[in-house]
Amino acid sequence: MIALRLGLAQVNYTVGDLGGNTETVLARARQAVDAGAQLVMFPEMMLTGYPVEDLVLRPTFRDASRAALDELAVRLDDAGLGRTAVVVGYIDDDGRPRNASAFLLGGRVVARYFKHHLPNYGVFDERRYFAPGTDLTVVRHLGVDIALTVCEDVWQDGGPFTVAGRAGVGLVLNINSSPYERHKDDLRLPLLQRRSAEAGAPIAYVNSVAGQDELVFDGDSMVVEPDGRVVFRAPQFVEDVYVVDVPVAEAVDPAPEVTGEVMTVSRFATGVPPAPAHEPEPAPVAPRIGDEEETWLALVLGLRDYVAKNGFRSVVLGVSGGIDSAVVAAVAAEAVGGDNVYGVSLPSAYSSEHSRTDAEDLMQRLGGHFRTLPIKSIVDDYVSELSLTGVAEENVQARIRGTLLMALSNTDGHLVLATGNKSELAVGYATIYDAGSIGGFAPLKDVPKTLVWALARWRNARAAERGRTLPIPPNSIEKPPSAELSPGQLDSDSLPDYDLLDSILTRYVDADRGVEQIVDDGFDRELVHRIARMVDAAEWKRRQYPPGTKVSFKAFGRDRRLPITNRWREN
Amino acid sequence: MIALRLGLAQVNYTVGDLGGNTETVLARARQAVDAGAQLVMFPEMMLTGYPVEDLVLRPTFRDASRAALDELAVRLDDAGLGRTAVVVGYIDDDGRPRNASAFLLGGRVVARYFKHHLPNYGVFDERRYFAPGTDLTVVRHLGVDIALTVCEDVWQDGGPFTVAGRAGVGLVLNINSSPYERHKDDLRLPLLQRRSAEAGAPIAYVNSVAGQDELVFDGDSMVVEPDGRVVFRAPQFVEDVYVVDVPVAEAVDPAPEVTGEVMTVSRFATGVPPAPAHEPEPAPVAPRIGDEEETWLALVLGLRDYVAKNGFRSVVLGVSGGIDSAVVAAVAAEAVGGDNVYGVSLPSAYSSEHSRTDAEDLMQRLGGHFRTLPIKSIVDDYVSELSLTGVAEENVQARIRGTLLMALSNTDGHLVLATGNKSELAVGYATIYDAGSIGGFAPLKDVPKTLVWALARWRNARAAERGRTLPIPPNSIEKPPSAELSPGQLDSDSLPDYDLLDSILTRYVDADRGVEQIVDDGFDRELVHRIARMVDAAEWKRRQYPPGTKVSFKAFGRDRRLPITNRWREN
Repeated sequence: MIALRLGLAQVNYTVGDLGGNTETVLARARQAVDAGAQLVMFPEMMLTGYPVEDLVLRPTFRDASRAALDELAVRLDDAGLGRTAVVVGYIDDDGRPRNASAFLLGGRVVARYFKHHLPNYGVFDERRYFAPGTDLTVVRHLGVDIALTVCEDVWQDGGPFTVAGRAGVGLVLNINSSPYERHKDDLRLPLLQRRSAEAGAPIAYVNSVAGQDELVFDGDSMVVEPDGRVVFRAPQFVEDVYVVDVPVAEAVDPAPEVTGEVMTVSRFATGVPPAPAHEPEPAPVAPRIGDEEETWLALVLGLRDYVAKNGFRSVVLGVSGGIDSAVVAAVAAEAVGGDNVYGVSLPSAYSSEHSRTDAEDLMQRLGGHFRTLPIKSIVDDYVSELSLTGVAEENVQARIRGTLLMALSNTDGHLVLATGNKSELAVGYATIYDAGSIGGFAPLKDVPKTLVWALARWRNARAAERGRTLPIPPNSIEKPPSAELSPGQLDSDSLPDYDLLDSILTRYVDADRGVEQIVDDGFDRELVHRIARMVDAAEWKRRQYPPGTKVSFKAFGRDRRLPITNRWREN
Repeated sequence: MIALRLGLAQVNYTVGDLGGNTETVLARARQAVDAGAQLVMFPEMMLTGYPVEDLVLRPTFRDASRAALDELAVRLDDAGLGRTAVVVGYIDDDGRPRNASAFLLGGRVVARYFKHHLPNYGVFDERRYFAPGTDLTVVRHLGVDIALTVCEDVWQDGGPFTVAGRAGVGLVLNINSSPYERHKDDLRLPLLQRRSAEAGAPIAYVNSVAGQDELVFDGDSMVVEPDGRVVFRAPQFVEDVYVVDVPVAEAVDPAPEVTGEVMTVSRFATGVPPAPAHEPEPAPVAPRIGDEEETWLALVLGLRDYVAKNGFRSVVLGVSGGIDSAVVAAVAAEAVGGDNVYGVSLPSAYSSEHSRTDAEDLMQRLGGHFRTLPIKSIVDDYVSELSLTGVAEENVQARIRGTLLMALSNTDGHLVLATGNKSELAVGYATIYDAGSIGGFAPLKDVPKTLVWALARWRNARAAERGRTLPIPPNSIEKPPSAELSPGQLDSDSLPDYDLLDSILTRYVDADRGVEQIVDDGFDRELVHRIARMVDAAEWKRRQYPPGTKVSFKAFGRDRRLPITNRWREN
């Protein structure tokens, strides 16, 4: 056994910014080499960002990705980093578009690997874009046979890892852009342990830390051994380069011949002999963090990157004194700084006194900006012009708020944040084009109401532990939720208790369970029917909703794609 | 040679309405049998509608589809139709979900076929849902070996048709839910001629006539022979059952054995011997219709089905006196009847006199309803509350209109129609949440401005030919386009001439051509750059746009999927 010193670059990228992403690779490769790394690995599609969606269909974009790779190889060498191997993800095109990994050394592309397993479920559409690779690339470097793989290759049985095992490799590199969802980190480790056993070699797994529209990538890079031992594990949501000594088996001659497998083994050699042995240093294994913290960090990263990568500096939102806008504002204050958060109270005739005072309290706690724009006179104008009553009158109030926030965005250049949560979006308990549903980004789009409360309590508890100001007014957490669109209105007038609602929604939406199955789980049949119909009927509103960070197994948006026109009703 | 009398059911379905779709099959099978059909074929996924998107992922839905098929077989028999073979599309599940076709006879499912080629490009995501079939199903019935295929099977080389040719079949049935796009009918015929030659047998091709969210299915059912002869062709956009005599070769014994192909031949036999020969009657070949008429009919069908299948009876829209709202109103009047169309003029301080008079003229020509709601006092309220100027003031006017239309929808139950066109949606030349972009459906979403004018002229010319009232005020066609959000404003202040704009957009958006390629086509480099950046920057607005009927090769929506966060810029 010898030890290879690997640099795992758990870093950020921006979709489409090939130049900026190249600079990131150069800077982070330098950092890794300075820390003694012999090989530095970067995430899947590091050069292009991920997912680039239909940009793949533009021939000019694929050409630019290939050109960026060649340029990167030369620039690494020019920067004096040519003696360190760099493995990096990009888009290739050999007549068909490929999700590819390249092995760079000495100013050249030594070898390429094309992703074999292409995910086409959930948020993924890779069969739309790429042709699957059929060769397993093995590069002999520093006396070790190193196999290249990409992301989904570890999630499917058969293919690269079993072939790598038969090929007798000493190390498997797996580069990822693996989107965050709650509890996914609990799946990754046992999966990698199984694949490492199949390959009979350690796996070095690197994932990005980035937000891209509805997805965030949480890092959680690691190195595991065939016996299941965790050599190293990075913290989630922290951008850094981690340098890790990995014990590996030296390559043997002749290398085993592999036939009759689904993939052909393609062998390459750099000609670089084994380095003098060094004593491996132990690497840290980051402790797991709790579910609320993990979700909170995902929301902060998702919003931070959306704001920054789209050229905004500040955000504006309606603050109602309620829990949703309080949590959105608190997430925003962490993402972009309290001084860049503009909270606006938009009271109508039906707004309670505490709606304004709690909102002001919130913005003070966060160090943000606060203003009040009463909407009563504008409401009166609409109501008298159209003789509005009932739901029409309620909705006009809600939409006036949306229009005012958009006007502030036009005037001051803020990104407007929608404050709606997943539970209300699921059942359509929100006015389309109101302050909860307009704007550029909806941080709580995939957060059920009960989790909104749990996040608020967790966030305040953390502040209390650290002796800091509680960011969220306790009154906003404790008071009964209300849209305040008519006198004395409460959510509970129209909806079941949120614990009950979310329990049904998780089953119907996230798990695709049938109505009868949910009834069998112990819920009232009539209620389950009613909720299912509300969910189905609200699809048209969801289609016009801004993007928001996916944190659940199944998010509305690219993850759950239902027809609007849909007469399906379960008996 | 003998002749088989086929019924081609070019009919409508509704997604998720398994009961209603079953009734359609029963009624249309009866109609076909009354006209002497020996075999009746229905479109792809007739029982479930198409596309059902993530409903496929619900086990209860797949079970319901299988149960509906079994029930249909029994009910056909109960209705005295059991001696006529019926071929119908549905979703099967043999452990994996399948896009399937069934051959029904005598109250039983005689044979099933699972679609081999699964499209996963453009508007299609079938690799997300289905496992590909690997068996070619051949049913011997009435002395003829009949192969079953589904839709995409004709669009890809290799597979069912070459295997059918080696298996010596006498007839291939191809059932479709093939979405309309301009010029697609010109592709279908040569394609079917090629496949018929490969199979060495006639192909009977049936397609639905239906609207489903952003897609419409245009029929265009036909029968072609291996020598290229067109036996029959149905008109586009007409729901009916067409009964056609098709000359076919009798089956031989033993049937050819097929080995070494990508698909295995699975043979079934109904035991029903050849019927007494009858003299084949010639069938009609519908003349092709012009591009404008075809597009117009697609827009009418798309809107009509969206309204009806979502339980609406009437529509409301802002009528500005301009060409977009005039064409939307005219399409709506054909789709739902003029008496169900409510046009609202929403003049501001900057609205011209002709904006109101042309709008009123329009609604009179269409036999619709007209009212005027001046927005000046509401605008003044907002402007003074926020001290708005410039774009913020322009946008507030636009959004007030949106809010008023949504209030009318709340009050009266109308579906709100967005009036924006593809050109403005492409470059973001529209206020998000204004009267052009809010509501439930956007008929012109995929219609470039130049085509909006062409459609208006064509529609008026047709009315003139027939001696009818011109539906669209000639003044709305002739006047220069303006948003009228500031004094004397014209579209041409901010945008190039629409002929030029649309020429660039078609290349950049529909054809994915690079900036340099477009410059090489003869366009100004700076202008092409500017347009490309406007398109990229407007993606966030498009994501929140209502659905609208796809008529082009590449529609915004499910057809073109770009990231919002996207720094890609072509040099």
